[in-house]
Amino acid sequence: MLTRFSVKPLHSMTRSLAAVAMGREAPDLVITGARLLSTYTERIHEGKEIWLKSGRIAAVKAAGAHASFKLPKKRVVDVAGGIVAPGLVDPHVHIESSMMSACAYAEGALLNGTTTIFCDSHEIGNVCDAKGIEWMLEDARQAPLSIFLTVPSTVPATSPEFETAGGDLTAAKIGKLFDKWPEAVALGEKMDFVQVAMGDKRSHAILAEALKRGRPVCGHIYGREFVAAGAASGITDTHEAIDRDIAEDFLEAGVWIFLRGGPPTTPWHSLPLAIKAVTELGANPKRVCVCTDDRDADDLFLFGMDWVTREAVKAGMKPVTAWSMGSLHPATRYAKDGEIGGLGHGRRADIVLLNDALEVQNTWFGGELVVKGRKVTPLLDRALSKRYRYPRAAYNTVKLAKKAVALTPPVPTRAVSANVIRTALPGIILFHEKISVPAVKSWAEIFAQQDLCFVTVVERHGKSGEVAHGLLKDFGLKDGAVASSVGHDAHNIIIAGSNEEDMRLALETLKKLHGGVCVVRGGKVLASVALPIAGLLSDKRATAVAKETTALKKAWSELGCTLPYMGFNLIPLSVIPEIRITDKGLVLVPQMKHVPLFE
Amino acid sequence: MLTRFSVKPLHSMTRSLAAVAMGREAPDLVITGARLLSTYTERIHEGKEIWLKSGRIAAVKAAGAHASFKLPKKRVVDVAGGIVAPGLVDPHVHIESSMMSACAYAEGALLNGTTTIFCDSHEIGNVCDAKGIEWMLEDARQAPLSIFLTVPSTVPATSPEFETAGGDLTAAKIGKLFDKWPEAVALGEKMDFVQVAMGDKRSHAILAEALKRGRPVCGHIYGREFVAAGAASGITDTHEAIDRDIAEDFLEAGVWIFLRGGPPTTPWHSLPLAIKAVTELGANPKRVCVCTDDRDADDLFLFGMDWVTREAVKAGMKPVTAWSMGSLHPATRYAKDGEIGGLGHGRRADIVLLNDALEVQNTWFGGELVVKGRKVTPLLDRALSKRYRYPRAAYNTVKLAKKAVALTPPVPTRAVSANVIRTALPGIILFHEKISVPAVKSWAEIFAQQDLCFVTVVERHGKSGEVAHGLLKDFGLKDGAVASSVGHDAHNIIIAGSNEEDMRLALETLKKLHGGVCVVRGGKVLASVALPIAGLLSDKRATAVAKETTALKKAWSELGCTLPYMGFNLIPLSVIPEIRITDKGLVLVPQMKHVPLFE
Repeated sequence: MLTRFSVKPLHSMTRSLAAVAMGREAPDLVITGARLLSTYTERIHEGKEIWLKSGRIAAVKAAGAHASFKLPKKRVVDVAGGIVAPGLVDPHVHIESSMMSACAYAEGALLNGTTTIFCDSHEIGNVCDAKGIEWMLEDARQAPLSIFLTVPSTVPATSPEFETAGGDLTAAKIGKLFDKWPEAVALGEKMDFVQVAMGDKRSHAILAEALKRGRPVCGHIYGREFVAAGAASGITDTHEAIDRDIAEDFLEAGVWIFLRGGPPTTPWHSLPLAIKAVTELGANPKRVCVCTDDRDADDLFLFGMDWVTREAVKAGMKPVTAWSMGSLHPATRYAKDGEIGGLGHGRRADIVLLNDALEVQNTWFGGELVVKGRKVTPLLDRALSKRYRYPRAAYNTVKLAKKAVALTPPVPTRAVSANVIRTALPGIILFHEKISVPAVKSWAEIFAQQDLCFVTVVERHGKSGEVAHGLLKDFGLKDGAVASSVGHDAHNIIIAGSNEEDMRLALETLKKLHGGVCVVRGGKVLASVALPIAGLLSDKRATAVAKETTALKKAWSELGCTLPYMGFNLIPLSVIPEIRITDKGLVLVPQMKHVPLFE
Repeated sequence: MLTRFSVKPLHSMTRSLAAVAMGREAPDLVITGARLLSTYTERIHEGKEIWLKSGRIAAVKAAGAHASFKLPKKRVVDVAGGIVAPGLVDPHVHIESSMMSACAYAEGALLNGTTTIFCDSHEIGNVCDAKGIEWMLEDARQAPLSIFLTVPSTVPATSPEFETAGGDLTAAKIGKLFDKWPEAVALGEKMDFVQVAMGDKRSHAILAEALKRGRPVCGHIYGREFVAAGAASGITDTHEAIDRDIAEDFLEAGVWIFLRGGPPTTPWHSLPLAIKAVTELGANPKRVCVCTDDRDADDLFLFGMDWVTREAVKAGMKPVTAWSMGSLHPATRYAKDGEIGGLGHGRRADIVLLNDALEVQNTWFGGELVVKGRKVTPLLDRALSKRYRYPRAAYNTVKLAKKAVALTPPVPTRAVSANVIRTALPGIILFHEKISVPAVKSWAEIFAQQDLCFVTVVERHGKSGEVAHGLLKDFGLKDGAVASSVGHDAHNIIIAGSNEEDMRLALETLKKLHGGVCVVRGGKVLASVALPIAGLLSDKRATAVAKETTALKKAWSELGCTLPYMGFNLIPLSVIPEIRITDKGLVLVPQMKHVPLFE
């Protein structure tokens, strides 16, 4: 099986590597004729070759130095002047965004030249608590990719008063995860940055679990006024530097910044603005990295770390610096630069071959060729076919209440004022509007007047069985329903629709699939992606998930939905302004108070 | 007591720091009116102030931001536009070179703006084995300085065949030190680089103790041909980059380089040549640090880390980059950049005030003002007066054989060929010469002909009781004797002299002092420095040791000795070419074979 454990720990191999480095023993494989991209000195060297031994780099030599070994041809790869560089290291990813398992995620990552990721599995944590995180760690251990964990720090995202989540990661549980799993190298993004700044006890007890073990803490801070307190509380990185000035604030506070490149159609592409702290303000980029954060299945293939790195070049960085920001700098941030992030001796042979546009042609993972000519090799293909099987409990997380529930609010029989959620691109902030609703016979009369539809959240953790109703403005959905079991962060089921029948079919569809996303119209399911693992992840291979996702997106836009489904999934996320809906009803953020639908 | 523990761990203070950062609570102290040197972005910011709380940095704000707190005057320090920067971090020091305890060393360090050091106590390890290292760790814990250990990796430097040492640090003992002492953060310089390259089992077993615990390994490699194998064996730093080309080799192999600045009269000042990898070859300096390595007592006051940093500026680095190389970069190399190395929030308030020439005016250690106007404050003065007391065993390490021994070789009664040691500045390499000695009545006849004197090594660990005789050429010593118990690395007693009487007085003097260095002439002790702790360290305060050292140096040169005493101490170091003398006799390096005095 090809996993990160296929390469033995350095301490068990030093004598053998030294023997190869000194030329006493022959390397297993030589990659010669290379232009070598040095992330250590940010230069490119012509005419180099790399000697590999047991999945590690034994030495870098002048091209041709291997001649004396008289190696058979298959042990020498001539890259004919191509650029050879270290595999990319993604310092902040949520695998669950891709709707696939860690084993499946590896395919997209390796095609993009990414050989190591630091993931924060807080979605599965919100559904399945610590045991879900442990399943995913097992999944990660079996993946043909180096996957480290930043332990989810903010589960649930708010409190039981505001939503019903499946998970409750206390400080004690987080401490146990650190002690049990050596790959749990840091505390994941501390999302409750307001509570951190305000000195909330639970929040700081969780920070302490990481800090007292000497582990770094990853941040998630919006707003320049919160940077100082976050950094003073021990937060030392962020992927939320959304513009030049806050990027500068973070850097000066001692916080590493991970410039997030998001697909250009999303609101997540903050790199071009944030990088101006370097290009305009002259900050040294040594503590600047790039990251992906979230990618859905098909975007993973198109907009990987390599793409983000190229975006950094487009924004003015030298290619060697950009590649360092995507490899050595993240490795250094997590104190793993002795193992990954550069083509130094003794390092894992995680290597990519690039063309001059920094496009990934080949990927070697621990010395094994897994991508060749932009295609998965048979070796990787076999590895991807043997994915980790999540336990039965992971497939049984959509636990709806037995009793039938109304999926739409009652028709107002007198004139009322309604608190509605107005959507607008890019879709992060949802606006609070009050509209007047006259007395009518049916909702259809009102929906005919303006762009409104139902939005309903159904608790699915087998706890409260609660259902909350709301109205969505400007969502564009005129006929049909869409639903998802990925509603952030509690991951209850969120349904939007023009009529209750389609909404019920959508709900029943997700129940049958044990979770997923679907599009329904006129009593028919137009498209669906089954996400049976925790209601979050497909158990299929990346290419299959990507294909299903593409079909889903097509149906989604046919229905006229203005927000893409990743944005739709954020509608219940009760930590972002102005108004959200959870299974407990409508919530005004940041006042953090409930508000009724009708007043 | 003022120690590194005076500042509580970050995890216990985050709520209080957040409260100050948000302005809900007042800082303990404000340093305002500063130009702030940012090691994170390598820029200087005008008009800043730092808010301190319980010895840490709670926040950096615009100057004047503290006004609303209405603090009493004594809690606000206006530095009137001076440069405020993080305290320096020395990534590689042997405290023993200063001939003083860790507690005493702190004085010189703090005056130089150094607030953290990473020390390798391999000298006391060679004398007292693991227990000596543990005494020094206790000493370090009581010092008003942050002292971390890089565990000595090469004790003894060679094998019992070639010299008798007091210590034998096996892999098992090293593993125990790592597990017992959390401040043991890395494996110290692996001096036996040839054995590393050759795959020596003991050597690699020691490397494994560090690597399997995820601790970095510090290197000591001479010769470009050994860089690849050293790096492949897990070595990730070096302070032995002695010129541009080997510095480049190291960087490209993934090895951090610590540019060593040595007092300009010594052969250790390799910074000006090695830094050319940056200034001439264009290597990015992000993995380049500066260090001191060795300083004797009076040089410690004159040529500290601040001086080395200024030397880097002189060699072409921007001041902000040079200061980063002396603070943030070493902190990052040891994954301590969340705690030291910059003025980030949450960090220890280890802060210096500099003038525009980067000369240290004030030092705050953990928020306490320890140096003011280039002078020790009363607070530090009190702390320095209460030094750690080494146990009785540490004071009893000069264990000479009871039987009287001849300190000079027999007079040749027939013509012989003698293998002599020729000294020459700078004093690192000692040259092997064969000279013809005619039959004579006394050595005086021969010494009258050419610049020769006796050199004798006396075993002092109470083991073999062996004595070895040799002849020193061009050492300039015409009348008298000099002796030292610091002869590297086994630290037996080395004596050079023109006559046996003075040599015996020198030996007796060191015996009486329980170790030290002395200068004798005509039956009188001209100068001596008592080093009763392990025969290596004075138990006095830094200023006293410096004064004694200055007097010793004066007497030393009055005798005409061409090598300074630090060079003299290297005469038994049987890992440097071409010929050395140990208690086992003359050794030819690198052939590593014994050779007799007369042939």
